[in-house]
Amino acid sequence: MSEHRDAMERTAGMVLVISGPSGSGKGTVIEILRGLAPNLGLSVSATTRAMREGEAEGVNYYYKTREQFEELIAEGGVLEYTIYNGNYYGTLKSEAERILDAGQDLVLEIEVDGAGQIKRLMGDRATTVMLIAPSAEEQERRLRGRGTEDDDVIAARVKRAREEIKEAPKYDYVAVNETDRAEECARDILSIIRAEHMRSDRMMTYIHDYFDDDEI
Amino acid sequence: MSEHRDAMERTAGMVLVISGPSGSGKGTVIEILRGLAPNLGLSVSATTRAMREGEAEGVNYYYKTREQFEELIAEGGVLEYTIYNGNYYGTLKSEAERILDAGQDLVLEIEVDGAGQIKRLMGDRATTVMLIAPSAEEQERRLRGRGTEDDDVIAARVKRAREEIKEAPKYDYVAVNETDRAEECARDILSIIRAEHMRSDRMMTYIHDYFDDDEI
Repeated sequence: MSEHRDAMERTAGMVLVISGPSGSGKGTVIEILRGLAPNLGLSVSATTRAMREGEAEGVNYYYKTREQFEELIAEGGVLEYTIYNGNYYGTLKSEAERILDAGQDLVLEIEVDGAGQIKRLMGDRATTVMLIAPSAEEQERRLRGRGTEDDDVIAARVKRAREEIKEAPKYDYVAVNETDRAEECARDILSIIRAEHMRSDRMMTYIHDYFDDDEI
Repeated sequence: MSEHRDAMERTAGMVLVISGPSGSGKGTVIEILRGLAPNLGLSVSATTRAMREGEAEGVNYYYKTREQFEELIAEGGVLEYTIYNGNYYGTLKSEAERILDAGQDLVLEIEVDGAGQIKRLMGDRATTVMLIAPSAEEQERRLRGRGTEDDDVIAARVKRAREEIKEAPKYDYVAVNETDRAEECARDILSIIRAEHMRSDRMMTYIHDYFDDDEI
């Protein structure tokens, strides 16, 4: 009997980019997805903040100077980044490639306007998913339900979310996070990962190996 | 709480075309898939054989004259057909569309050279999967294992299967049916159906409905 290999383990890894406006429930869904997906790599981020005691290069972060980080951004070496407390934090393209080449997948949570950039830098190796609430009404209800923000802040978030959802056609997939169904939604996204690994263009190496010669 | 709707029920149906050379285990996998897939329609075939007692139009078959059937073939109204005992049997495009428009999916088992035709006739509504054994060796072992054919017949089937697998790049997906893992393979194909329903182009109607107005 041949050793069983899951569909996700037959081909090189892929970057799964997940974006979702406020109220989509992105955090919960991604947390569940990380527990379910069998072959996820963890990327070490790069930062310009100083190394702290007990930290190590390539373990906690890749430590860069501001000049290095900005040069990397300029040359397309950074998939996504943010600035926090005056320091850059981001995901290096080289780090993503290391994980993918090792046959693992990478899940990245990215702002709506950053997903296109990853698609440009990673090409076919990136698959993008927009996560949405089942309706604009429900999404607004979720935002209000938090109860910690005043009406102006909520109204601004609702407006921004509406604008973001209009970007859905630029994504490869749209996943709907029904209320109280976060696990179902995570499994939907898992199906996307599983299916994407079976795309015939990704399977060509496998097809080559199918025969023991160079017939194809 | 909103009513839960599965990813497969949010969008219009799709035709899933499955082809697999001898030894791929196609029959078993499709049988399991039919048990697992939640939203499959059953298409009534068309035939030129005479109606028998107790049969009814549109229940057992759509009954056509030879002239009608051949005209339908000529005008692209037949997705696939075969001739058995001098009669045509086939799947009408109109029947497939009826099922898809009702929001159900349709699984069709099609010879390798017929899958392209369905893609041409159904466009984006058809998704094609080639099912293969894990290796040429294993596929040959399966063919020999049946033990009912002589060596010449087996050699011809092996040769034909090799030719067929070279068509894999023309398919959307390639699913590997590992030995003794037919259910796993059926679940892989189920992931394809689930993922395809989430493709952003298929989700556009949903996105329109997301807002209660014509914003997008």
